[in-house]
Amino acid sequence: MKSKDNFKIPVSNKSAGINDAFWGRYIDLVKNVVIPYQWDALNDRIPDAEPSHVIENFKIAAGLSQGEFYGIVFRDSDLAKWLEAVGFSLAVNPDAELEKRADEVIDIIAKAQQDDGYLNTYFTIKEPDNKWTNLRDCHELYCAGHMMEAAVAYFEATGKRKLLDVMCKFADLIDTVFGTGPDKKKGYPGHEEIELALVKLYRVTGEKKYLDLSKYFIDERGKAPNYFIKEAETRGEKADKADKVWGNLGSRYCQAHLPVREQTKAEGHSVRAVYLYSGMADVALETGDQTLIEACKKLWRNIVSKRMYITGGIGSTSFGESFTFDYDLPNNTIYAETCASIGLVFFAHRMLQMDVNNIYSDIMEKALYNSVISGISLDGKKFFYVNPLEVWPEASEKSKINEHVKVTRQSWFGCACCPPNISRLLASIGQYIYSTHKDEIYTHLYINGETEINVSESKVKIKQETRYPWDEKVKISVSLNEGKEFSLLLRIPGWCDNAKVYINREEINISNTRVNGYAKLKRIWRNGDVVELVLPMVIQRIKAHPNVRVNIGKVALQRGPVVYCLEEIDNGPNLHEIVLPRKSELKAEFDDNLLGGLTVINAEAQRYNSSWEKDELYKAEVESQYRPVTVRFIPYYSWANRTTGEMMVWITER
Amino acid sequence: MKSKDNFKIPVSNKSAGINDAFWGRYIDLVKNVVIPYQWDALNDRIPDAEPSHVIENFKIAAGLSQGEFYGIVFRDSDLAKWLEAVGFSLAVNPDAELEKRADEVIDIIAKAQQDDGYLNTYFTIKEPDNKWTNLRDCHELYCAGHMMEAAVAYFEATGKRKLLDVMCKFADLIDTVFGTGPDKKKGYPGHEEIELALVKLYRVTGEKKYLDLSKYFIDERGKAPNYFIKEAETRGEKADKADKVWGNLGSRYCQAHLPVREQTKAEGHSVRAVYLYSGMADVALETGDQTLIEACKKLWRNIVSKRMYITGGIGSTSFGESFTFDYDLPNNTIYAETCASIGLVFFAHRMLQMDVNNIYSDIMEKALYNSVISGISLDGKKFFYVNPLEVWPEASEKSKINEHVKVTRQSWFGCACCPPNISRLLASIGQYIYSTHKDEIYTHLYINGETEINVSESKVKIKQETRYPWDEKVKISVSLNEGKEFSLLLRIPGWCDNAKVYINREEINISNTRVNGYAKLKRIWRNGDVVELVLPMVIQRIKAHPNVRVNIGKVALQRGPVVYCLEEIDNGPNLHEIVLPRKSELKAEFDDNLLGGLTVINAEAQRYNSSWEKDELYKAEVESQYRPVTVRFIPYYSWANRTTGEMMVWITER
Repeated sequence: MKSKDNFKIPVSNKSAGINDAFWGRYIDLVKNVVIPYQWDALNDRIPDAEPSHVIENFKIAAGLSQGEFYGIVFRDSDLAKWLEAVGFSLAVNPDAELEKRADEVIDIIAKAQQDDGYLNTYFTIKEPDNKWTNLRDCHELYCAGHMMEAAVAYFEATGKRKLLDVMCKFADLIDTVFGTGPDKKKGYPGHEEIELALVKLYRVTGEKKYLDLSKYFIDERGKAPNYFIKEAETRGEKADKADKVWGNLGSRYCQAHLPVREQTKAEGHSVRAVYLYSGMADVALETGDQTLIEACKKLWRNIVSKRMYITGGIGSTSFGESFTFDYDLPNNTIYAETCASIGLVFFAHRMLQMDVNNIYSDIMEKALYNSVISGISLDGKKFFYVNPLEVWPEASEKSKINEHVKVTRQSWFGCACCPPNISRLLASIGQYIYSTHKDEIYTHLYINGETEINVSESKVKIKQETRYPWDEKVKISVSLNEGKEFSLLLRIPGWCDNAKVYINREEINISNTRVNGYAKLKRIWRNGDVVELVLPMVIQRIKAHPNVRVNIGKVALQRGPVVYCLEEIDNGPNLHEIVLPRKSELKAEFDDNLLGGLTVINAEAQRYNSSWEKDELYKAEVESQYRPVTVRFIPYYSWANRTTGEMMVWITER
Repeated sequence: MKSKDNFKIPVSNKSAGINDAFWGRYIDLVKNVVIPYQWDALNDRIPDAEPSHVIENFKIAAGLSQGEFYGIVFRDSDLAKWLEAVGFSLAVNPDAELEKRADEVIDIIAKAQQDDGYLNTYFTIKEPDNKWTNLRDCHELYCAGHMMEAAVAYFEATGKRKLLDVMCKFADLIDTVFGTGPDKKKGYPGHEEIELALVKLYRVTGEKKYLDLSKYFIDERGKAPNYFIKEAETRGEKADKADKVWGNLGSRYCQAHLPVREQTKAEGHSVRAVYLYSGMADVALETGDQTLIEACKKLWRNIVSKRMYITGGIGSTSFGESFTFDYDLPNNTIYAETCASIGLVFFAHRMLQMDVNNIYSDIMEKALYNSVISGISLDGKKFFYVNPLEVWPEASEKSKINEHVKVTRQSWFGCACCPPNISRLLASIGQYIYSTHKDEIYTHLYINGETEINVSESKVKIKQETRYPWDEKVKISVSLNEGKEFSLLLRIPGWCDNAKVYINREEINISNTRVNGYAKLKRIWRNGDVVELVLPMVIQRIKAHPNVRVNIGKVALQRGPVVYCLEEIDNGPNLHEIVLPRKSELKAEFDDNLLGGLTVINAEAQRYNSSWEKDELYKAEVESQYRPVTVRFIPYYSWANRTTGEMMVWITER
């Protein structure tokens, strides 16, 4: 059996029909603020931000301007991600002016392409003779991948092929450079990305060689002898240095330490890792390659059961922006790059296409509601690269091991990967809600809106009405021309203990119909049928596995999919002095006026209150004393939107 | 009034007459194992250790051998510290063979000295034209200082002047190079050390210009414009880089960010800091400079009340091996270099010469019994550079922020500052026990032995009999020719709540006679008088100031001056799961057979016992459960002497 037959096809972003208070705000923000703001950033018009120069780089490469390449070697990808976000946004919110701007920039990109199809402004301008000589560090294939994704998104939104043709031509060139043929390089990218992009290109063009090339990059990766070491030797670098470029990580940094099918633990740079795993899952889906499917499952399990923060953040250290080892999840020296959580959403989304199971969709939801959107300020203009779970501003200022943990979001970065990555994710949130397979419709996320889905050769309208994630109720109305038997599968989140489902006001016993964490409602559906889903959002005290040393004896609060935190502005300084008694009352309350409207949690807590003299550092036989205090938790994603100060997710329980 | 008149003069190492089970073992170890072992190391004869090459460097500089300089720029100081240790050891344990070996090496050193007095093998061999052009990085004055200390110690032990004359000649040269004169450099050392060494040279020779030069280096330090920046510009380095050589610390790294009298917080590289403060105190003592005395007191207070580990370790981060900020005392990313604790002992010792007060001697004792001797293995052959308070071996292996925290002591280091520093400290432990001033004898440390002290122009024999730090009793017998009135001041340690003093079996009420933490016993002493001091060693549960975030809710155990820890070999892995109930029984027990004989603490504790599935990382509403366990604490200094594993000082209290 070909795996392809089992492929659970996501409903596209374009047809998701989101009309949601929570996500709609982000989608509008992307359209009205983030895309224009980032356009200004790409054109170096943000006064207090580092210049991007990417548009200028493309103009220089296109011969439309004079000057030098400026910026980090993968600067091209910032424009690609911006264009992809534009594509996703135009798909749901047509905007002639924005489309015109995009067309103009695509014209420049097309002019920057060389006759043979090559496209990369760094090498074209700066090192034309060194193309493909440093895959390890120079991101040519990475930038190509992002531009391919942009081309596909833009084509799907507008039907315009210009960028798609440019990128097919480049993909054709890449296919002549890399592969098994005798004159071809046996290389693969230092930063994975093109693998998943080539599968997208294959799907939209039907050109099988793109899929084959993606599979080649995946199959070749990590084989001995290591390509990057040989490549470095060819460049004249010393052999003993070649594998040490990423500190103690070696080729583990870019997941090239083992053939991918032999990898069982998520290692190295976390963004690279989840991009690779997403590409692996794509190829596995298309080819039905069981060993690749198994590798994806093992890597997924390792991440979510040993190496993931409660927010869906991944990457425990700033050194190599990487994973470290099982259960090493420090809250304050954390990395948890926004891009890595976005990549985790990509990986989850692909695993869901393989197998519908809430072990994937729960994590997708967790990342989306927490560590992805914590990366962007509520006004859409500032961004976190690193998403800590505990912040002590003085440490960020004065201690090297914390200095990557910023206490305020930044307007732009020299390495600006995260801002355009968030905007393309938010602009395409629609594609994560539903998928279908034969006579089944799966609902993964609860987001207000209306979509039309083909199931068993019929069109079915599905309308969701909900105030999720603040409210426990989701009303799903089904419209169709004539009664039709199919299954509607609703995700019952892992965090929810006592979900109830009603069809036309009659309660359904879902314990019998639960499949892989989804309530399977199989029946002849008729026009006007209404499903009501109730997902009681009790405030949960979450504990971490005791092997997570820093969290032992601590709890984090979660309500629905939303993880909470304490902020200094609400609770005063020295948040670490606050303890949460085991039985204290926790009260959720929606606050319309706070941070755009959100549910806060007020709790009866205690605060350390023993008296210490100013100059006493150590003292014997001090009885720890506590005084009662009321504390306010806010959703984690909304922190650092008022003023700078301490923040803390994991609180000592008493 | 000249401060000098108040100078509390330490009784010399030579006449301390130690005969102590605890420290005698270390003194013998230094003589029998460490000095010979380090001699082999200096001669590159330790098979598994990095070569030192220092003897060879001196031979090459002396024209006795051919070859290149090898090693770190301050390699000379390793030999200097070894020679100083030899001097201290010979002072208490004459050894003709060792003295002959030292004489031979001193002959080589003398030959390596250049005609003008210059002595530094790096510059002599490698950069003869660049002397004194990079004080910031190149340690010429630092190496000179260590060799001066060696010269003084060797002279005091043997009466031989050869090395002393060599170093006076070098000091005379340095005095012509640096100072206020028109042709002199306005520089000062990048690594402080020569300041305190010049005062030693002054004291032994009476040559006042050495004191003046020391004072010059101290007064000049940190004045604007910064010397190191100007010096770097002279070398052709870019101005904006010159102050950035030590990361975000700038000239703070070497305490050159402000004139020393304006410094109020211990900043930068912690060894440099305490060496500087020791030199400042020496100059203040000799000159009576009140502003310098005040600066020393402020810096002392900042260290001990805000920036010191419970073990007497200092330096919170490996970045710059430096202090960070008040109350930032992480247990597992700690630095706490052995040399820094040794320097803290030096600083305490000088403050005690200024003012007898147990705020100094308690810390001196704390560092000696904990973070100094944790730096050396019980067999004398292996050394810690970093002295952590919490070790998770997997983190040391796999996480960059912990990789400087070694789980086993190393046989030698490329930067071998700590091993010879410990040996010179241990060999000279005698000088820290007593001091005198007019008609007062102060006893700072309780160490079995017998010494003769001049007080009020009489000779008094003081004999201490004690099994300290394991036993609470100290018997002090006084012998003298005829009855004499003087005061014997006994330190009552800050950790001791209920000390008792008996003179000739009669209890003395010491609450009336306590001066600055010392029981002042003023009387006409007669031959055969016996003082019995009882310092009840209850096991104390110590807490840290609540601003020390990582220790909130935790306790450390201390008995007498000895801080305790849990080790995996006694208590199994996952030490963080152990909690200590507030009222649990703690039992001290001397174990003759363990690690050379020491007092362990057995405690009734609890261990986290909730059940978690293998793949669960986060779980709601888990009741934390505990099972009773008996745990064994060992003295902190003795950890890592059996096998590798976890170690933990601060334990969660429940």
